[in-house]
Amino acid sequence: MAPHAPFAGVLSPVLTPFDQNLDPDTDRFVAFCKRLLAEGCNGLAVFGTTSESNSLGLDEKLALLEALVAGGVDPSVLMPGTGLSALTDTVRLTRSAVEAGCGGVLLLPPFYYKAINDEGLFAYTSEVIQRVANSHLKVYLYHIPPVAVVGWSLPLIERLMKAYPQTIVGLKDSSGDWNNTKAVLDAFPGFGVFCGSEIFLLDTLRSGGAGSITATANINAGAIRRLYDHWQDSNADDLQAGITAFRKVLQKKPAIPAMKALLADAEGQESWRAVRPPLQALAAEEGRQLAAELKPLGLAAAAE
Amino acid sequence: MAPHAPFAGVLSPVLTPFDQNLDPDTDRFVAFCKRLLAEGCNGLAVFGTTSESNSLGLDEKLALLEALVAGGVDPSVLMPGTGLSALTDTVRLTRSAVEAGCGGVLLLPPFYYKAINDEGLFAYTSEVIQRVANSHLKVYLYHIPPVAVVGWSLPLIERLMKAYPQTIVGLKDSSGDWNNTKAVLDAFPGFGVFCGSEIFLLDTLRSGGAGSITATANINAGAIRRLYDHWQDSNADDLQAGITAFRKVLQKKPAIPAMKALLADAEGQESWRAVRPPLQALAAEEGRQLAAELKPLGLAAAAE
Repeated sequence: MAPHAPFAGVLSPVLTPFDQNLDPDTDRFVAFCKRLLAEGCNGLAVFGTTSESNSLGLDEKLALLEALVAGGVDPSVLMPGTGLSALTDTVRLTRSAVEAGCGGVLLLPPFYYKAINDEGLFAYTSEVIQRVANSHLKVYLYHIPPVAVVGWSLPLIERLMKAYPQTIVGLKDSSGDWNNTKAVLDAFPGFGVFCGSEIFLLDTLRSGGAGSITATANINAGAIRRLYDHWQDSNADDLQAGITAFRKVLQKKPAIPAMKALLADAEGQESWRAVRPPLQALAAEEGRQLAAELKPLGLAAAAE
Repeated sequence: MAPHAPFAGVLSPVLTPFDQNLDPDTDRFVAFCKRLLAEGCNGLAVFGTTSESNSLGLDEKLALLEALVAGGVDPSVLMPGTGLSALTDTVRLTRSAVEAGCGGVLLLPPFYYKAINDEGLFAYTSEVIQRVANSHLKVYLYHIPPVAVVGWSLPLIERLMKAYPQTIVGLKDSSGDWNNTKAVLDAFPGFGVFCGSEIFLLDTLRSGGAGSITATANINAGAIRRLYDHWQDSNADDLQAGITAFRKVLQKKPAIPAMKALLADAEGQESWRAVRPPLQALAAEEGRQLAAELKPLGLAAAAE
């Protein structure tokens, strides 16, 4: 790991709890972030896809970030998603994150226009970095073409790393394509590469990667962290098999409403079920079935 | 046309001029809007895809809308794009538009998450309408799957029209697929259907549609309007052929930077060229070539 890449291990793209009016439940969010750290997360990628970040307004994200730091969460463990559709919004959120002391930011490419090229994405990213103009800024590129469609190509990553070697420090690969993750790992030794699914955690670490930023860390952080801590031990493949089995069951349902349903049942807090449209809450019965399937695989959130 | 559908004819999704700092140039925007109305636009779909709307922040759009009305543009001719990625932002911009007196709004579906269904889109749209809670709200659905990926299906349109018959009054079809436009026209007589390209204007009008909301109206409003005014006359097919030829030349280049380059040259105002990244400005030479090709087809903006 390059010394200037500040994150390693297991990061959770934190679910955003809402109240009955679909407003972010700030207190519960802060408490949940602290709990995830206690459960083993090395860091928190708040405002990710799993956080319904793009269903939140900029002002809502700014308020949540402020509450998190005011609530006592060490900002150096935070890697908020700050890549929004509009350049000016991205600059504002990124600047706020750096000024709050966040260890890094996770940068989605601008995702509205689809017929854009690497030249345009380079110009956009340069503009963000130059406008923020803060040497503490550490950018992790967020590659998630199944959702954003627009992504970070290998030539573009290389060009950005060369232009901003102290700033462009890593990437989260949520392509779901191990071949792509491996290609990034092989092309850029020392780059802080995180797989977007813990199914690839052991492979990522064995290829010199930094860890995993994975939705499942919202409900299975302990087990994923165990693999991260023991990946060079003889039982690493068993630990990988365990978290892979867990993930594969979770993947049968839409992950965000499914994990919220599991948390609602585990904590007896109905409002945990709430997602913002266009996402749809899971039917209660589906949540109970999922919990029953996940319990033997180590679901920690339930049945406390 | 149903009496409660307030728009008909030719609407321009207005280009957003920037200054050298890439901030919206408010004065030029207001002046350009007035000019488009003078050139023949029946209405202005500000904050559309062509407007780089999703490269603008919510606050920037709110300020431009306010400036437009304060600058003397009749709000009843305005159909701002108000569909943003986040529910709360969409509600805020939609509410501001209605309260400003806008004749209608053009509603993109929430476009970040891709694996969503009609149920989720119905819930989202319902939530917007109920939160805005203003009987003056007139919603035109914005269907542009090549960019937004998420779109409005026929069953969903029908369900929304039934649930909100006074509010869901029309649709802009930028699918580029005439079969889809025709299917909407046939399924919902009286619905205010606009084609997203003037190539389909005559077909749209002959099938009972309302008109066209088209990027090209930024530089060819007069000719498009002429067809709208004379679509039942004997020369209608000739008028259609003329604007189709114009459009087909324009389509050889990315429309937004191309039209901005044409306006920059025509007005001798270099800053017209500016687009926000990730879009890329057109090379000056490409703009001149395009102008040379469009002049014999009636390019009005140039050579004044």
